[in-house]
Amino acid sequence: MTIYTEMIKVSTNKTCELVDITEFASDEVHRSGISTGICSLFAQGATAALMIQENDDPNIPTDVLNCLKNIVPDGIWLHDRIDNNGASHIKAGIIGASETIPIVKGKLALSTWQNIFLCDFDGPRHCRTVLVTIIGD
Amino acid sequence: MTIYTEMIKVSTNKTCELVDITEFASDEVHRSGISTGICSLFAQGATAALMIQENDDPNIPTDVLNCLKNIVPDGIWLHDRIDNNGASHIKAGIIGASETIPIVKGKLALSTWQNIFLCDFDGPRHCRTVLVTIIGD
Amino acid sequence: MTIYTEMIKVSTNKTCELVDITEFASDEVHRSGISTGICSLFAQGATAALMIQENDDPNIPTDVLNCLKNIVPDGIWLHDRIDNNGASHIKAGIIGASETIPIVKGKLALSTWQNIFLCDFDGPRHCRTVLVTIIGD
Repeated sequence: MTIYTEMIKVSTNKTCELVDITEFASDEVHRSGISTGICSLFAQGATAALMIQENDDPNIPTDVLNCLKNIVPDGIWLHDRIDNNGASHIKAGIIGASETIPIVKGKLALSTWQNIFLCDFDGPRHCRTVLVTIIGD
Repeated sequence: MTIYTEMIKVSTNKTCELVDITEFASDEVHRSGISTGICSLFAQGATAALMIQENDDPNIPTDVLNCLKNIVPDGIWLHDRIDNNGASHIKAGIIGASETIPIVKGKLALSTWQNIFLCDFDGPRHCRTVLVTIIGD
Repeated sequence: MTIYTEMIKVSTNKTCELVDITEFASDEVHRSGISTGICSLFAQGATAALMIQENDDPNIPTDVLNCLKNIVPDGIWLHDRIDNNGASHIKAGIIGASETIPIVKGKLALSTWQNIFLCDFDGPRHCRTVLVTIIGD
């Protein structure tokens, strides 16, 4: 059993954005040389999160963000008096910072349409960081 | 430290359904022979998810699905023009594809009323797959 | 590769409350002696959950709870006829019971403002339990 760690760094361009990081995570799995195990991903930043989602239709990230905006409206939170990003924190808390994906035969065992997205709810940011920890044989 | 992997396959019968997979996961923990560690579960499919929830009252899965239907209404998403299942994708993204459960003394360390549910938000499907990765001693 | 397990036990004082457990989890990482790996946390109880969230402004937990109360209103669920806590179960299912946090150089690799919160949606309870499983080198 071995362990491999790396950081994925991405920039974001909008206030709210889902960025597909599947290729970066897949590259790290390949570099790790691990054939069977888990790839644990963690989004740093209390206004960021990770979501497993379809990437074939680029409208889905837009739908996700529109739904979250309906559920968590802007501008009505106590924290808005401090940072004006209360909704960003709540969205990040609901979606969650960590996902653990199995590795099978040296590859992330995502299904055909599943991709990994960094969710930035308080962008744009020149650097969002996702920590990668791969454990296995 | 050893690693054990398996697939749980279940069929679903309704458009939206929570299926209790605790017994299948417990069986895999037993087969793994691992006494102390983690059982990492991952639902394949971008309209499926995993939820830890009570199973004693069969109304709770119904309540969960009714709440998600209120939060994520059908028929108003951009993706509906392609596949008519935009809500299914959003629900799966909010609930999340992965859960990691500790193994203590050879058993899943769920509390008395906690069970593991596969959430199908775009059923019925003859085969939904949950990948099981067990790591420990 | 070694494995270390422990329980964090906390009491809660309100019906709905977020309790910062970061210091307890950090202490376990220190005791484990593990420098590189993962800290997998699991909240027992089907009305509890875990959330990575900011702790600098104490209004954020209040905002989170107010938002969840809007999304999941009290008193309208089938399960309320049994236990009168249907909303508690739904909130726990949406937020999720498990989070996996990387360990880098012997410390939890949380970013500056990220803390770990136990969410009690059906308190007060004299004892809520979070299981800690640390795996690494």
